[in-house]
Amino acid sequence: MECYLDNSATTRCHEKVKDIMVKALTGDFGNPSSMHMKGVEAEAYVKDAKKTISNILKVNEKEILFTSGGTESDNWALIGAAEANKRSGKHIITTVYEHPAILNTCAYLEEQGYDLTYIPVDSKGIVDTGALQDALREDTILVSMMYVNNEIGAVLPVEEVSKIIKDYNKNILFHVDAVQGFGKYRIYPKKAGIDMLSVSGHKIHGPKGIGFLYIDSKVKIKPIIFGGGQQGGMRSGTDNVPGIAGIGAAAAECYHNFEAKIDKLYELKEFFVSGIKELEGTTLNGPEGREGAPHIVSVSFEGIRSEVLLHALEDKGIYVSAGSACASNKPAVSKTLKAIGVKKDLLDSTIRFSFCEDTTREELGYTLEQLKEILPLLRKYSRR
Amino acid sequence: MECYLDNSATTRCHEKVKDIMVKALTGDFGNPSSMHMKGVEAEAYVKDAKKTISNILKVNEKEILFTSGGTESDNWALIGAAEANKRSGKHIITTVYEHPAILNTCAYLEEQGYDLTYIPVDSKGIVDTGALQDALREDTILVSMMYVNNEIGAVLPVEEVSKIIKDYNKNILFHVDAVQGFGKYRIYPKKAGIDMLSVSGHKIHGPKGIGFLYIDSKVKIKPIIFGGGQQGGMRSGTDNVPGIAGIGAAAAECYHNFEAKIDKLYELKEFFVSGIKELEGTTLNGPEGREGAPHIVSVSFEGIRSEVLLHALEDKGIYVSAGSACASNKPAVSKTLKAIGVKKDLLDSTIRFSFCEDTTREELGYTLEQLKEILPLLRKYSRR
Repeated sequence: MECYLDNSATTRCHEKVKDIMVKALTGDFGNPSSMHMKGVEAEAYVKDAKKTISNILKVNEKEILFTSGGTESDNWALIGAAEANKRSGKHIITTVYEHPAILNTCAYLEEQGYDLTYIPVDSKGIVDTGALQDALREDTILVSMMYVNNEIGAVLPVEEVSKIIKDYNKNILFHVDAVQGFGKYRIYPKKAGIDMLSVSGHKIHGPKGIGFLYIDSKVKIKPIIFGGGQQGGMRSGTDNVPGIAGIGAAAAECYHNFEAKIDKLYELKEFFVSGIKELEGTTLNGPEGREGAPHIVSVSFEGIRSEVLLHALEDKGIYVSAGSACASNKPAVSKTLKAIGVKKDLLDSTIRFSFCEDTTREELGYTLEQLKEILPLLRKYSRR
Repeated sequence: MECYLDNSATTRCHEKVKDIMVKALTGDFGNPSSMHMKGVEAEAYVKDAKKTISNILKVNEKEILFTSGGTESDNWALIGAAEANKRSGKHIITTVYEHPAILNTCAYLEEQGYDLTYIPVDSKGIVDTGALQDALREDTILVSMMYVNNEIGAVLPVEEVSKIIKDYNKNILFHVDAVQGFGKYRIYPKKAGIDMLSVSGHKIHGPKGIGFLYIDSKVKIKPIIFGGGQQGGMRSGTDNVPGIAGIGAAAAECYHNFEAKIDKLYELKEFFVSGIKELEGTTLNGPEGREGAPHIVSVSFEGIRSEVLLHALEDKGIYVSAGSACASNKPAVSKTLKAIGVKKDLLDSTIRFSFCEDTTREELGYTLEQLKEILPLLRKYSRR
């Protein structure tokens, strides 16, 4: 049996996504910047995708800007907004457990003379809103937080956070990295008080190499990539039409029968979590049930190195992550697990299981069975 | 008859490119950063593409870094190298007729306090090497020039330029924007003295949204996108595996039977150019025959607005550009045409015809016939 339980790392492309991409690659392959019909045909894909996505978010089509992925979206939101607003101040707030696309961009901004504050999170990974309140300053220009933590599935109390920020100073921009949240939650930036929102294609059964940044029309932001003036001069470079069509189709698919899909994911999560709890020496990280995201389960396995367990599961056709896959093969200590106070000897013993709409109860049952067999063996032979 | 003669704007994806992309989208869809087999399978596509491209350029695999396209490659080469070398000086040299991805990045660098010199070109669009010689200074850190001009097909005397730069100061970096040159010329950066080389996928029958930057291992350069540390920390973001596989396959295809393809393109060009010369009131821009690129023919049509001719040709199924497509629908006066001294009343009367390996003599014959019919009509009814 093959169980792909690493959907927070990346997902299989949906058939509809693949189909529209093939059309845009080989049929309607024009350059949307061309003035002739071939350009107009290609541009229609871009317009359709914008319409789909802006309808889902209930925002204006012009507020959707396509990027090369979640990482570029995060970089752009932070660097572009910081540079455009630095006359109002150079203080930026984020959390200790953001994705490296945020944390390493923040490190870059610190080198450029910006002042960063990193808000802590509690033992379930929920952002400390009191600390946020205390951190806000006269020169704060931007707050960036993730919607769903990619390692433990903790969820941002987004409206509460937005209210704290905007009550303090309505001009402070609020960026949300929704790479793990889009497609799992209904997100309405206007209602939630979100000024910028990052989304990635390949986490929602869309293609890699494409993402978007929602930018409220009131936000002052500078481009970070310069050139032919595509996308209203805000993000130059020939539009990635197949990718854009792909992320549009993927977004539409995500929010089709949405509640049923999410309910199914929570049922799977509950089934899996109760199975995990029956196993000896396991600790669940992050919020349980509907307090956490529907697709992420983080488990620490006492006395077992995560890499060893990962490969033992791989032998059984089960694919998971040690922490997250985003740190590019480098097994580093997880900032998220440290942030929520995971005990030192469990930091390196943690596995992330992440589901998608195609995940089945059979797959999870099989995974639990295999764990039941593997864990005692590994503990016996790999005493540390 | 349909004649797509806008291949310098973008190209149709090759079947082999589409096939490998579909495999990477729906079959081997893993994240190369994942430690399990699904990650390893995906990583193999990236390794294969690097190998293919590095073999073509005769460089080391590690010197190929994937980007979201030619525009990002150009931005990275300029901003990344400028920031990494600014202690040695802040003077950068380029030409007056570069692509906007270079010129607008240069404008950004000027805002950041860099000093830019723009070298002129002659009436055929060839870079004035005397002016380059004169422009070199003690604080020059970077020279950036395009291999093939995208509007008129002028070709850079790359080895001569490199020699002038390196003879003056071997530490000055030489970046070449080869977006229109790669696939049309055999380019060996090590031999030619090129330190960085930008290439785009969709100009060579590969996908949009992917490109690469060759960076000689000795070059000091900073990343411009920060995150999970992919590509050795130099370009973060989940590898765009389908795109990377696509550009790899496209590059391989380009250089397969290379000489025969280029000979065919030159024959087509000669056939088309001699037909154009028989038409009244036409002026060819840029170098003729093998002195220019094999795939670009720029023609000014006296007394006819390019947009009008473009749409008249479109009615006949012939797709061309007015100038270039890269300026995103905005019909602005071409810097290239101004740079080579095109007469004022012809600036707005110029059409670019651009071919690819699939272009046929029949298509070009048909285009010439249509022009023969259309031109007198347009001149009659659209006197300015």
